[in-house]
Amino acid sequence: MKMMVKRLDRIFYPKSVAIVGATPTTNKIGNVVLKNFVEGMFDGEIYPVNPKYDEILGRRCYPQISKIAGKIDCAVLATPADTIPEIMNECAKKKVGGIVMITSGFEESGRTDIAEKIREIAVKNNMPVVGPNCLGVFNPYSKIDSIFLPMYKLERPRAGNIAFITQSGAVGSTIIDLAAYYGVGISKFISYGNATVLDESDYLEYVMNDKETKVIILYIEGVKDGRKFLEIMKKVNKKKPIIVLKGGQGRGGQAAAKSHTGNIAGSYMAYNAAFKQAKVIEADGLYELFDIVKIFNQPKPKGDGIGIITNGGGLGIITTDFVEKENLHLAEFSESTKKEIAKILPPYGNVGNPLDLVADSGVDSYKKAIEIMMNADEINVLIIVVLLQTPPMDERIIHVLTKASDDRRKPIATISVGGAYTEAYRKILERNGVPSYSSPTAAVKAVERFVTYSKYIKKLK
Amino acid sequence: MKMMVKRLDRIFYPKSVAIVGATPTTNKIGNVVLKNFVEGMFDGEIYPVNPKYDEILGRRCYPQISKIAGKIDCAVLATPADTIPEIMNECAKKKVGGIVMITSGFEESGRTDIAEKIREIAVKNNMPVVGPNCLGVFNPYSKIDSIFLPMYKLERPRAGNIAFITQSGAVGSTIIDLAAYYGVGISKFISYGNATVLDESDYLEYVMNDKETKVIILYIEGVKDGRKFLEIMKKVNKKKPIIVLKGGQGRGGQAAAKSHTGNIAGSYMAYNAAFKQAKVIEADGLYELFDIVKIFNQPKPKGDGIGIITNGGGLGIITTDFVEKENLHLAEFSESTKKEIAKILPPYGNVGNPLDLVADSGVDSYKKAIEIMMNADEINVLIIVVLLQTPPMDERIIHVLTKASDDRRKPIATISVGGAYTEAYRKILERNGVPSYSSPTAAVKAVERFVTYSKYIKKLK
Repeated sequence: MKMMVKRLDRIFYPKSVAIVGATPTTNKIGNVVLKNFVEGMFDGEIYPVNPKYDEILGRRCYPQISKIAGKIDCAVLATPADTIPEIMNECAKKKVGGIVMITSGFEESGRTDIAEKIREIAVKNNMPVVGPNCLGVFNPYSKIDSIFLPMYKLERPRAGNIAFITQSGAVGSTIIDLAAYYGVGISKFISYGNATVLDESDYLEYVMNDKETKVIILYIEGVKDGRKFLEIMKKVNKKKPIIVLKGGQGRGGQAAAKSHTGNIAGSYMAYNAAFKQAKVIEADGLYELFDIVKIFNQPKPKGDGIGIITNGGGLGIITTDFVEKENLHLAEFSESTKKEIAKILPPYGNVGNPLDLVADSGVDSYKKAIEIMMNADEINVLIIVVLLQTPPMDERIIHVLTKASDDRRKPIATISVGGAYTEAYRKILERNGVPSYSSPTAAVKAVERFVTYSKYIKKLK
Repeated sequence: MKMMVKRLDRIFYPKSVAIVGATPTTNKIGNVVLKNFVEGMFDGEIYPVNPKYDEILGRRCYPQISKIAGKIDCAVLATPADTIPEIMNECAKKKVGGIVMITSGFEESGRTDIAEKIREIAVKNNMPVVGPNCLGVFNPYSKIDSIFLPMYKLERPRAGNIAFITQSGAVGSTIIDLAAYYGVGISKFISYGNATVLDESDYLEYVMNDKETKVIILYIEGVKDGRKFLEIMKKVNKKKPIIVLKGGQGRGGQAAAKSHTGNIAGSYMAYNAAFKQAKVIEADGLYELFDIVKIFNQPKPKGDGIGIITNGGGLGIITTDFVEKENLHLAEFSESTKKEIAKILPPYGNVGNPLDLVADSGVDSYKKAIEIMMNADEINVLIIVVLLQTPPMDERIIHVLTKASDDRRKPIATISVGGAYTEAYRKILERNGVPSYSSPTAAVKAVERFVTYSKYIKKLK
């Protein structure tokens, strides 16, 4: 498969795309995919293929792949399962670079016979296949986008450096949507479904060498080759952190996974052991996957000493509770740090960690408190709780927090809990690249995972 | 304190309010509180009190309480700590119904001497005091609102039947804000700070007898009288479910709690044991508090059999994983249920729980699937995962889910994960009273707490 993995570039950076099964019927997959290419930002050649039409969405439509004159880098297939082997043979003859197979109805529906043919044709011709039974790929750098969900319902995220590899299309699409919503940039999106030809290990290998990717998110249900998977995880995770969520952990979930992508989910204990051995970061839910990845763009912490700043006592306490539950280390302020802090507090303020600036403190107090903690050797990570609703707080807090994140001296995580007003501010912070959380739990868990991974990497060196 | 608790009605349903410490200076507490009364919906008498001014915000300002001719139901105090005892004596003389004391700087700053005086004056005159060091009260039924956070920054929720009792103002305000954001209605909001006169137990007693309250959320840091607290929790929880979050669980959190409201947080193990004994529902974080309460407006489940419907395989699997982790029971479909389901699935569909309607199913499939599960005896709770981003999904899903919630046959919880488009839909669902969650984890945890509480209540009968 090594050769095929390299050839994935033809799929991720195509100059020409054929959409086989394109249709003018609104809301059909073959229509949504074509529309996303036509109305999206893709600027290569687009070839709709369907013998029933001469033109779709104003584009010339071809009866079959072989009738297209130009070279085809990537063919997106959305025709019924039975038609697939013949179309693949045609693609091979035409020397198509690679295939994204959206079609479902193979292993997951008992049609392992067709799946076997797909594998055969792909291997014989060294032609990479993503899928089948998947959403396919999205690459904001090349603008290829085979996700069959309308753009007005599912936003596409901006270019960045997080790769998403997902077995499930549903999970993948929600992550894409959330990434767009929070302004998180992605490098590659791969929804690989049944993994009939290439599997999770192959995609891990691909993004390990992808220059746009710095962090990897992985959602798996069942893995084909456990040994291969463990080895590649170990190798990749040393270079780029992997955050993984395993679907199908119990009996009911495993049964569901079988009928979902036709893969056997297997014993969760074995997976859990493999994750631990490879030191990859395991998430305990969909949002957590997302919460964790946000902090990985921050500079690595040099230790586990946490400093907390807050203007809401109770929120500082809840955050502290989680810091202790997660076995992080609440930093003990040095004498000089204490002195500096005392200078900025009102007479009735208490010098402590969490540092409670109290509700009537404004942006300037935050600025000073952050500066003191940035300079304090005993503090390695800053958790900054900001209750944005207090009277003296104003929009300059955005600048102060963004600057703290941008100067890259120490990692920070910010927490702001609230409704519409607070969420609007939080989104600006997210778009500015500041890890911003709406709950103390989420923030502290992310910090813990980041601290643990950073310790592991430090030891390797 | 029994007598005082009864008198709290004067604070929660006042016909006249004095704001002592009112000021024209923008962003000062005494200004924000007065402004919220003047610009809010409160239609009783409003008396600003401050010897420095003749008029504030177009209202006649009084030099002191005693100079006000009319009766005063509630006095909101926002003057410095040292001035408080004298003002209280004046209030007592004037026969003020009750006091909301926002002022801080007492137990939490070592001034137990003034706190002692406050208690003395209150008890002697049988005059209830909420606070000090708090946000005070909000009652959407009477429109009293002493929360010193501007309305444009912190929305106020609509009238409903959830009472919030919170020791911390910061935690309380974020909950208020989230409740407004998600359209959750509240009955009473009580931020009680140092609990110098009345404490958490007294407020529990008050809302137990409050006809607007059906569910209670409680955030505590330290409790004064553990025995009294345990007894009242037991008593109240049998009539109205209590969902509790304990702040200050570890050493660092306890130290912070001490300097926050001057209360000793005490051993978390003792609290945890008390919660278990009283069968109250313990939340493990701020959002969870909120997630759990949403489902308590649904009809109580008759058992623990869970049915899951989804149009995204992976999301169904993740939801199933959590159902199993939370030790809920994934219902085994009866033969007749299986038959009914087979009729509505496409030929390649799989009859199973989770029931995967697959991505190309639309609103009608949901309608039918919900109807089948509503009629199936083996299913007690419906968890409905809807990936709103799929092409065939449209706005009629709102109607179908709202109807399923409104007909009150069985409790439902819905899950939709996504960005802006999905969140807009979710908000409509919330406003329609449908428990809607953005993560499987949150939904399943809420269902588990609701099932467990319902079993407890059923046994009592």
